[in-house]
Amino acid sequence: MMQTLERHPPLATPEHLMTPFAPALLAVALATALPASHAQQQPEPAVPGYAYGQQTLARSPFTLADLKTLQASLLFTDDDVRALRQSKAILADQTDAILDVWYGFVASTPELVVFFSDAGTGKPDGAYLAAVRKRFALWILDTADARHDQRWLDWQYEIGLRHNRIRKNRTDRAPSVAQVNFRYIPALTIPITTTLKPFLARKGASAADVDRMHAAWVKSVLMQSILWSQPYIRDGEF
Amino acid sequence: MMQTLERHPPLATPEHLMTPFAPALLAVALATALPASHAQQQPEPAVPGYAYGQQTLARSPFTLADLKTLQASLLFTDDDVRALRQSKAILADQTDAILDVWYGFVASTPELVVFFSDAGTGKPDGAYLAAVRKRFALWILDTADARHDQRWLDWQYEIGLRHNRIRKNRTDRAPSVAQVNFRYIPALTIPITTTLKPFLARKGASAADVDRMHAAWVKSVLMQSILWSQPYIRDGEF
Repeated sequence: MMQTLERHPPLATPEHLMTPFAPALLAVALATALPASHAQQQPEPAVPGYAYGQQTLARSPFTLADLKTLQASLLFTDDDVRALRQSKAILADQTDAILDVWYGFVASTPELVVFFSDAGTGKPDGAYLAAVRKRFALWILDTADARHDQRWLDWQYEIGLRHNRIRKNRTDRAPSVAQVNFRYIPALTIPITTTLKPFLARKGASAADVDRMHAAWVKSVLMQSILWSQPYIRDGEF
Repeated sequence: MMQTLERHPPLATPEHLMTPFAPALLAVALATALPASHAQQQPEPAVPGYAYGQQTLARSPFTLADLKTLQASLLFTDDDVRALRQSKAILADQTDAILDVWYGFVASTPELVVFFSDAGTGKPDGAYLAAVRKRFALWILDTADARHDQRWLDWQYEIGLRHNRIRKNRTDRAPSVAQVNFRYIPALTIPITTTLKPFLARKGASAADVDRMHAAWVKSVLMQSILWSQPYIRDGEF
């Protein structure tokens, strides 16, 4: 799968999108040097726009009770929390390589790269892509942390708003298109988790453990994509 | 997984929900006796409310071009179509057993069974559950057929409307709650495909083929759940 993605014809792929991004590496190094809950120990964000744990975030309209029922419907259990946390040490020093694959996929898929394009020129906006990438690296670690509390819920709500026309582009002052269309948000569960699996297997975990971690990642990414969809849903139908 | 589900405490589970349903078996037998595209050869529906291929269906607002881009974002390829079609012969005589597991899961999950409840009494509506079950059996075969043409799109749109408050309950004249809340629709991808996997393995396919079929099912069910979500999405944001 990874090979397939890497060999995908690089349609509309500026060279710089594929270059490892040094400040992101630094941010990851900083984040992973902190204890598990780095989000709660950063009064000022080390990465611009990264606001997990900040008191300024709005309270999510979906509650911890809603999350429990959503998790039940997804068969998400404490075993999945353990599997996600097991994946953190495996993924922590691979986030940049993972992001190379994910950005390669986005860059080679015109219907996705458009969401990072300059609305005026139609060309990918390198600064916007780079700014998002830094937060994306922290998102990998946060997903692995799996601390599904109110702070986490509030951050999921904010992430959803930033995909929706309500708040897209604002964080990075990007001159981009108005929204990420809803349908791609749950869909991206598949490329994200499919391409993650080889990285889960690179540090000697057993095949059974890789399968467990992969299944937990599929559930968590799908669960998050559902939470991120909330701003797109008609009133009272979420 | 199946054992876990079957051992799940049967909260609010009327006995008759777990009983094999003879007319559904007959419907499956009829459907599987026909060539692959049974939908196109049934001017009158053999199962009440099953309208795949009927000219009376509204045209879906999402187009075949939209479907192509959604499939690209899901990494859904011709290999997945082949894997789904391979699964049809394996699943065709197991649909009733599969539905026993799925209905067992729904019946034991209060946040899901409520969507089949009588809005007045709050109790599960056996007739409604049985009517849906007959169409659900055909949905398994239709998913395996993977004929992703305009007729299929129109049927996906209709299925979405029937989950939404726009058209829920109407097909079966059920006295049930007004809608299936959006968030459970993509979420059900996980229990449906997780519990399907052992059935894919029961007819001697290699482990690699079972994995291929399972992955194709995950993509297809997620893709369908995204299409079914369209009526829930604010105008212009799908």
